[in-house]
Amino acid sequence: MAEKISFNPLPEIFNAKAIAMVGASNNVDTMGSVLLINTLKGGFVGRLYPVHPKEKEVMGLKAYKAVGDIPDVVDLAVICVPTRVVPDIIKDCGVKGVRNAVIISGGFGETGADGKKLENEILALAQTHGIRFLGPNCIGIINPYRNLNMTTFPYFQGPGPLGLISQSGTYVTQVIHYLEQKGIRYSRAMSVGNQADLDLVDCIDYLGNDPETLAIAIYIEGIKRPRAFLEVARGISIKKPIVALYVGGTEAGARSSATHTGAICAPNSLYSGLFNQAGVMEAHTIEELYEWAWALATQPIPAGRRVAILTQSGGPAASLSDACEKYDLKVPIFSPELQDRLKPLVPSTGSYKNPVDLTYFRDIALMTDKMPRLILEDHGIDGLIIHGLMATSWLRGYEADPEVSAVNMEQLTEMMKGPSKNLAQLPKEYKKPIICSTFMGRDIEVITKFLQDDDIPCFYGPEKAVSAMAALCRYGEIRRRA
Amino acid sequence: MAEKISFNPLPEIFNAKAIAMVGASNNVDTMGSVLLINTLKGGFVGRLYPVHPKEKEVMGLKAYKAVGDIPDVVDLAVICVPTRVVPDIIKDCGVKGVRNAVIISGGFGETGADGKKLENEILALAQTHGIRFLGPNCIGIINPYRNLNMTTFPYFQGPGPLGLISQSGTYVTQVIHYLEQKGIRYSRAMSVGNQADLDLVDCIDYLGNDPETLAIAIYIEGIKRPRAFLEVARGISIKKPIVALYVGGTEAGARSSATHTGAICAPNSLYSGLFNQAGVMEAHTIEELYEWAWALATQPIPAGRRVAILTQSGGPAASLSDACEKYDLKVPIFSPELQDRLKPLVPSTGSYKNPVDLTYFRDIALMTDKMPRLILEDHGIDGLIIHGLMATSWLRGYEADPEVSAVNMEQLTEMMKGPSKNLAQLPKEYKKPIICSTFMGRDIEVITKFLQDDDIPCFYGPEKAVSAMAALCRYGEIRRRA
Repeated sequence: MAEKISFNPLPEIFNAKAIAMVGASNNVDTMGSVLLINTLKGGFVGRLYPVHPKEKEVMGLKAYKAVGDIPDVVDLAVICVPTRVVPDIIKDCGVKGVRNAVIISGGFGETGADGKKLENEILALAQTHGIRFLGPNCIGIINPYRNLNMTTFPYFQGPGPLGLISQSGTYVTQVIHYLEQKGIRYSRAMSVGNQADLDLVDCIDYLGNDPETLAIAIYIEGIKRPRAFLEVARGISIKKPIVALYVGGTEAGARSSATHTGAICAPNSLYSGLFNQAGVMEAHTIEELYEWAWALATQPIPAGRRVAILTQSGGPAASLSDACEKYDLKVPIFSPELQDRLKPLVPSTGSYKNPVDLTYFRDIALMTDKMPRLILEDHGIDGLIIHGLMATSWLRGYEADPEVSAVNMEQLTEMMKGPSKNLAQLPKEYKKPIICSTFMGRDIEVITKFLQDDDIPCFYGPEKAVSAMAALCRYGEIRRRA
Repeated sequence: MAEKISFNPLPEIFNAKAIAMVGASNNVDTMGSVLLINTLKGGFVGRLYPVHPKEKEVMGLKAYKAVGDIPDVVDLAVICVPTRVVPDIIKDCGVKGVRNAVIISGGFGETGADGKKLENEILALAQTHGIRFLGPNCIGIINPYRNLNMTTFPYFQGPGPLGLISQSGTYVTQVIHYLEQKGIRYSRAMSVGNQADLDLVDCIDYLGNDPETLAIAIYIEGIKRPRAFLEVARGISIKKPIVALYVGGTEAGARSSATHTGAICAPNSLYSGLFNQAGVMEAHTIEELYEWAWALATQPIPAGRRVAILTQSGGPAASLSDACEKYDLKVPIFSPELQDRLKPLVPSTGSYKNPVDLTYFRDIALMTDKMPRLILEDHGIDGLIIHGLMATSWLRGYEADPEVSAVNMEQLTEMMKGPSKNLAQLPKEYKKPIICSTFMGRDIEVITKFLQDDDIPCFYGPEKAVSAMAALCRYGEIRRRA
């Protein structure tokens, strides 16, 4: 395979206006049908053409026996049919003049030598017909900016700044609800499957040039073109952060990846070296992959490692401080000037030297406006971690109980909008990052919801907030060394 | 302070039948009132006596001007009044003959030298009157077996096997919803505050002897009696697992803990040595503390480190395998006999050598019964990790949509009860642990809910499942070396 990036068809694929859904039917138990359901329910505004040998109408849409029967120019074919039928569909697409495809069907390189042979055949066929494709053995693509979700799971969130590239479909789709609970939203998401034609490098190249993607997360089981990866990633990582999780360097991991996407694995150390040279940040867990990338996609890059901690709880203050030192972040004692400014705002049982521990607060603006501003203004501080913002979660379960709650829940929710909005714009105003730690999920705490929706990372646990802040600092160092 | 355990009043405190709530009023903005609210709403079946200088009735209960006015024997006084009033309340309790107290009020040792002096005064007063107490500067106690939740947050879960001891109130209360989302339930939970009288060691001694507590989790900022800790913890850890998280060994951590609970900190390495000698497992994040302890509280201890992996997703199979090797767990290739048994159950696109990757499944019993049984029966396997059990989460958002879902959601939920129950009893049957990994929260996936409610740990992410399995293995080694 060529080690060179030529014309990249991915912008066309992600912005297709007329899509043939080959293999969709009225039997909702098949994957092709589920893809169509999610595309329809996702609110895609383009034209959709189900293709099926028997159905006349599929989910309210006119169906066609073959791609060639569609009375429209088709930008993209999504192919989800039995393995043996795939070559014929590619030929049909070629004759019709379809230039791009996403091949969902499995049964190719991941199953062994025979499958690999078949995979080479469809690649040759596609090349003959001038067709570029993602897959086979992938799970589809998501472009929330166009309400396009052609995958097996519903995506209800709005668009966001995180671009995801994955060799595992699971890490695109099964995680959607999990990411939603953290307020993490995609700009684009794609599963590359066996990478017979378009591969990780093409996807990185695409997202590197996509203005709606502000950070790139990649799940990797094996890179087919290491030199191209290095070249492309190095060019992008100096302007846009890239985080990667590599799995497959261990014996059992390799055994698993081989049967999964046919990837050929190399030792972890080799990949670590490659990532380091390419300016790619290496995550070690799937949670780090998403959370680091989300922090990088949403927050300004800090100038240094001096972190302020603001809480109303002693335990999290201690945990945050401890984690900062473990991650090699500094939690400096505030300057005497800053201490003088903070002291009048902190009760006598609290502390104001860094960490700031309010122990208790009544005025939410203390934690969303006054104190964050004083801290971010200070030249001795590069970033701020806040733990313990809460309003509605105290009252969980008692919402309808007038005996307990003098303020009604809707009023309280309304009251928290302003303070949350205010806090959310401080990173832009001061060009310094804010990351929140909380144990209060967006389902019970409106401040968590508001902040997450306004692109302030709120992660569940002090160590996660610190880990993400440390990732921001490391990226600053990568960029400054470049 | 004596380095000896004498009579332990904690069983009396946690099983109090008549409680004076000193400081509760009808002003729901005070902490004393919130404690009473949660005690009432929690469904406590004992007798509650609000004590307040002005109120005649508090939240429907007759209130008393002083503890001495209560016309009943009082087992426990919960004291949540301004700092300066605490000594008088202790005297009143002494005169009344109250033997036990929980002192919520702060403003003592954690605020500096003056506060420390006051703390010593109340300790002396309590000793004079024969009163034992938790606190001051703590957040209360929870005993779900008696519907007793005297803290600042509601606890709606049922009782479970995890005993929690914390120097931070936050890690008892702010985490309740967070733990609920993981299906983690307390047997007892207590915040020890400044440990003026009863300390961590007394609490460990108590939970070590409590039959409803099957594992103990401890959040530590500083141990006051290291020798007693070692002696007591060593005696317990050979029969009941103890997991500890120590925070305070770094400079900023120490600064924070000192103002928080007045703890005096020592380097991390010193605590690591102490834990190791005591057979206590050391967690490094708050999430590890809870998740390891939950796995240890619910699962049989494996005889060795040989782990089987069962999934329907290639990505998680690779992640789980990779994480196992990083945590020094073995993922051995199955014996030819086991492979022969599994092969007919796995589709041609999947794999059956370990990891097992079904790629897709229709029959839930494959993953909840047939395959787990075949695997757990095998003498070459010590424990099982499963990823990807799901039924209702596929349909999230489409529940009411007959076009999409042929099976209705209630029927589907009902259908999953049997398979979940079946899987949940396999660890007992085979005396081998099962841990699940999933990205599907209990709010959208009934299988997650059913399994969690039946004490099968379902953690959100492959690395967390592996980390917990590794903790089980390490505890097996601790016990075998003893």
